[in-house]
Amino acid sequence: MIIKCSKAELIRGINIVSKAVPVRTTLSIQECILIDASSDIISLTANDMEMGIETIISGEIKEKGTIAVNAKMFFDIVRKLPESDVLIHADDAQNVAITCEKARFRILAREWEEFSRIPVVEMDSPMEISAFTLREMIRQTIFSISANDSNKIMTGELFEIRDGSLQMVSLDGHRISLRRIRLKNPYPDCRVIIPGKTLNEISKILTGDTECMVAICISDNHILFSFDTTMVVSRLIEGNYYQIDQMITKNYETRVTINRRELMDCIDRSILLVREEDRKPIILQTGDDVLHLQINTSLGSMNETIDIETEGREIMIGFNPKYMLDALRAIDDETISMYFMNSKAPCFIRDEQDTYVYLILPVNFVV
Amino acid sequence: MIIKCSKAELIRGINIVSKAVPVRTTLSIQECILIDASSDIISLTANDMEMGIETIISGEIKEKGTIAVNAKMFFDIVRKLPESDVLIHADDAQNVAITCEKARFRILAREWEEFSRIPVVEMDSPMEISAFTLREMIRQTIFSISANDSNKIMTGELFEIRDGSLQMVSLDGHRISLRRIRLKNPYPDCRVIIPGKTLNEISKILTGDTECMVAICISDNHILFSFDTTMVVSRLIEGNYYQIDQMITKNYETRVTINRRELMDCIDRSILLVREEDRKPIILQTGDDVLHLQINTSLGSMNETIDIETEGREIMIGFNPKYMLDALRAIDDETISMYFMNSKAPCFIRDEQDTYVYLILPVNFVV
Repeated sequence: MIIKCSKAELIRGINIVSKAVPVRTTLSIQECILIDASSDIISLTANDMEMGIETIISGEIKEKGTIAVNAKMFFDIVRKLPESDVLIHADDAQNVAITCEKARFRILAREWEEFSRIPVVEMDSPMEISAFTLREMIRQTIFSISANDSNKIMTGELFEIRDGSLQMVSLDGHRISLRRIRLKNPYPDCRVIIPGKTLNEISKILTGDTECMVAICISDNHILFSFDTTMVVSRLIEGNYYQIDQMITKNYETRVTINRRELMDCIDRSILLVREEDRKPIILQTGDDVLHLQINTSLGSMNETIDIETEGREIMIGFNPKYMLDALRAIDDETISMYFMNSKAPCFIRDEQDTYVYLILPVNFVV
Repeated sequence: MIIKCSKAELIRGINIVSKAVPVRTTLSIQECILIDASSDIISLTANDMEMGIETIISGEIKEKGTIAVNAKMFFDIVRKLPESDVLIHADDAQNVAITCEKARFRILAREWEEFSRIPVVEMDSPMEISAFTLREMIRQTIFSISANDSNKIMTGELFEIRDGSLQMVSLDGHRISLRRIRLKNPYPDCRVIIPGKTLNEISKILTGDTECMVAICISDNHILFSFDTTMVVSRLIEGNYYQIDQMITKNYETRVTINRRELMDCIDRSILLVREEDRKPIILQTGDDVLHLQINTSLGSMNETIDIETEGREIMIGFNPKYMLDALRAIDDETISMYFMNSKAPCFIRDEQDTYVYLILPVNFVV
């Protein structure tokens, strides 16, 4: 194989596929990037068996062929080359020469036949959403997946198409995050669970471009995201996701309308006083058009008041400040509405159009 | 104590003194910052017993007093406050209230009487150099102090005034870095060893301002750096530093003149192939107005050639590429001269004016 690409194009490609190179693995072939120039295009592929990424880079094929090279080593070398064209020359004995201006590296490739290609997902009638929207929906929900592997379903997100809407949902037993958009075109209903890791990595690759469209196809066990010249294929998590609709209610006894930024800054400060080991709640108490917030921990205490509009009964309720902060950060609205039933029932933060719902369970506290 | 300062001014001050807050300590009073408003100025002090920093911040004293507060906690709180004036109110029971707009924190102060004040160094006839020059001299020599504590002297730098010049020298047994400047005013000769940690921290505080002057005073056991409204006092390392003059020679058999950037980039690339455990050298070989560089390791190999001017015999010599890179990074000149005796003798990189000398010992290699 002999190919010539610009350094910038190689870097761009490696940056994308390296998201699917496992950090730790016992199989050294999985640490590799496959460079496939066996047809008329040059593609880079990485695959950690849960997620595979393939991207096409522009370049010149002087001699067709395929190689697999250690991803980290290859990336490190290319990164340090001068900003110029890079010639990659591999002989049959797996010796790879990487030449760029006067710099010349020689490394050994791996047996590329051992490399696992990414699974094929049929590309018939994909659903399409913009890269910007997909990235935002991930950002606004990903934080409340569970880090704990003991319940596999909670480590992923529900991805559901129903009645012309797409909704993404995550929950970890303490809170639920839900985002919903109306789809422009009709698609058949579907309901799958995407691993959180896949969503995390995809959101790093996606540009915030509203013009760039992502085509999504779903097979029995896999989901394919296709955009620009990149394909991401991920396994789905098996199982039935929770019935979210049953957990979300529109009833309330108290409604608070508050400036999101003010509330967020206040809770952000309160976290300073919280040590990992003592999970002290932040206590919210409504008064005459003000919300009193206070926290008392072994490190000190904090008191603040924020102007609000209220409707309904007065309430005093405690929350894990971190959970509250995560939800507030995920919302873009300047003013938000919080709905309470009583001090033992969850708080809902949601908008009128139901494009987002954040549910947070309260915690007990002693005044 | 009741004082009022802007958040920005507090942050500026804490940022400076926190360099002297130890990361790990068994004495919790050492984790504190002393806020002294007992006279007409507000000073912040931190002291890890090897180095102490005091800085004066502007603000209003409403009630005189002194407190000691945990540095990290205090910094974290102040950082998260709104950009406004901060009121710090401490009562006799060591309760400290920190108020800024609607935010109100309460923390507990420590017994400030336990805090060790920084030692007094007499400020008679200090020597003066610009903050820019001091910072540069530190940057250009600090990398070759020894990290190994077994030889205390090598963990510091020689700071020597002699014949109207200031020279700073570091060495670690494999290399020597020397920087020298002519002083504008005459000062008495002196020769002390400053801990590397002190120099590291000072260079972080110093602005790159050529107008800002640093006054330096030396007592038997301490050195004082004074600039703007900040004082840094450090212990000196006891002992006699090495006789550097005897290690540096101007004789040579081969002289190579080379573009520093080209050589640096090439060696930077070669390091990719070097693993921590196998210390493979980069081999330099002079030819007809070119320098051949090559490295062979278990990971691969690299070959490059760089155009040079040579004088004297041809030479082939091996170096630890990291040591060579450190020296090249510390030099600002576009073109540098390297002097060689033979493949067993040190290489010298130095300029005509003797403002810098970098000595690097060669390593053995098998071709």
